[in-house]
Amino acid sequence: MSEQNCIGVFDSGIGGLTVVKELFARLPDERIVYFGDTARVPYGSKSVDTVRRYAKEDTELLLLHQPKLIVVACNTVSAVALDVVKSLAGDIPVIGMIEPACKEALRISSSGRIGIIGTEATISSKAYEIELHNEAERVGKKIETFAKACPLFVPLAEEGWEDKVVAELVVREYLEPLHEAKIDTLILGCTHYPVLIKVIGHVMGNDVKLINSGAVAARQVKTLEANSLKAKPEHLFLVSDIPRKFQSIGERFLGYPLPEIKQVVFEEAWVVNP
Amino acid sequence: MSEQNCIGVFDSGIGGLTVVKELFARLPDERIVYFGDTARVPYGSKSVDTVRRYAKEDTELLLLHQPKLIVVACNTVSAVALDVVKSLAGDIPVIGMIEPACKEALRISSSGRIGIIGTEATISSKAYEIELHNEAERVGKKIETFAKACPLFVPLAEEGWEDKVVAELVVREYLEPLHEAKIDTLILGCTHYPVLIKVIGHVMGNDVKLINSGAVAARQVKTLEANSLKAKPEHLFLVSDIPRKFQSIGERFLGYPLPEIKQVVFEEAWVVNP
Repeated sequence: MSEQNCIGVFDSGIGGLTVVKELFARLPDERIVYFGDTARVPYGSKSVDTVRRYAKEDTELLLLHQPKLIVVACNTVSAVALDVVKSLAGDIPVIGMIEPACKEALRISSSGRIGIIGTEATISSKAYEIELHNEAERVGKKIETFAKACPLFVPLAEEGWEDKVVAELVVREYLEPLHEAKIDTLILGCTHYPVLIKVIGHVMGNDVKLINSGAVAARQVKTLEANSLKAKPEHLFLVSDIPRKFQSIGERFLGYPLPEIKQVVFEEAWVVNP
Repeated sequence: MSEQNCIGVFDSGIGGLTVVKELFARLPDERIVYFGDTARVPYGSKSVDTVRRYAKEDTELLLLHQPKLIVVACNTVSAVALDVVKSLAGDIPVIGMIEPACKEALRISSSGRIGIIGTEATISSKAYEIELHNEAERVGKKIETFAKACPLFVPLAEEGWEDKVVAELVVREYLEPLHEAKIDTLILGCTHYPVLIKVIGHVMGNDVKLINSGAVAARQVKTLEANSLKAKPEHLFLVSDIPRKFQSIGERFLGYPLPEIKQVVFEEAWVVNP
């Protein structure tokens, strides 16, 4: 099977496996090459410059596998470095997490009061809000947006504490302002957050529709991919570290047994910035 | 002032600033060169191989500043890679976080029931337990050890939530087994944990003595450093990223206004492992 037929997916770590899960479900015949930068995870608390540098290197790595399409399964990279990925990818289509989720939010929100949660980097960038307002103007809809960074959601999800009382308390602490703002739609703007979807739904109540940005992006990938391969795909999973609890967290996020994982490393040397 | 007079300190990120705070208090005339690997933080959830590689690179960077002494202000590196640092440092003395804290625990524990908390990597390595049992044998004391990894403590400390109800709930969740084991001494085996010392003390009760591993290590540095410089020191703070909230978190951890920070970066290229 030619390398050229794969869908390349990358993320700062293992959160992107929740997106791969959606791709598996919608495109079972496609070959996936996944890269998780587990040696440098997380990206969401780091500076824009550093995330852009990492995004460049991650894209270069994926391009070695000649993907026909690249999915940026990391909201932080989608928010602050999608242009870096697109510019390196040239003619290869690039799907980020933000545009599909914003289109979906505008489609399903009745009141136009839309919430966004994500990492520090994603929320500070205002990438979701800008996209939502541009799209709203395009379709002639009036909206108001409410954004909140939730740094503790990622460690909560990785610790597997989603059913504990403490998870509900943390979720309430962050989401109370969005609840008070009476949003009717909430974008889960981080690939870890679908793991917490039950407790987020419980805290926000039945009237608030939750958007899993990875699932919506996977639907868009399916639309682009009309000519599926219809052969047993040999997926490839690359990581820059095989960290602690990788197996158990990975399988929980992916919803399938983890395939064989290959490690890539950097050759590095310190350089003091000019 | 010659570079050779500095004390070199490194950590995976900004947690080591709690150790620098102790050095400032005990050795106000010493020049500190600090490096925080904020672009790749955290280390505590990553694999031993990756942490050893990072420790090597961090030490090489510090050695460029010709320190007379190196303080490994990161419990994870102290637990899994102190030999890497020592071997690169040659004749330069290296002080890790583990040995001083273990000596102190044996000195102050009456019952010999000693608890240790730290990152996944630190706890899995059993470095504290091995050192405690070796030292106990040396001094002829009978002890029992109880260890627990507390991955959510670092994000809790960075979020500044130490006074919130949720912090107490998280601390109870992790420390209940140590409380039930009736320990009388608890080693805070991660440089972030002193930020949570009040709530940890509240949950464990007045009878349990808490050991701040960084503070104890700083005392040992002072013992080694008889010939202080007695001049206004010009500290140097290096980081591999200047991440979000760096200023506010850094000052809270350091307890002093942050000095000027210089950024260093890697030159990197992906290499697929053989």
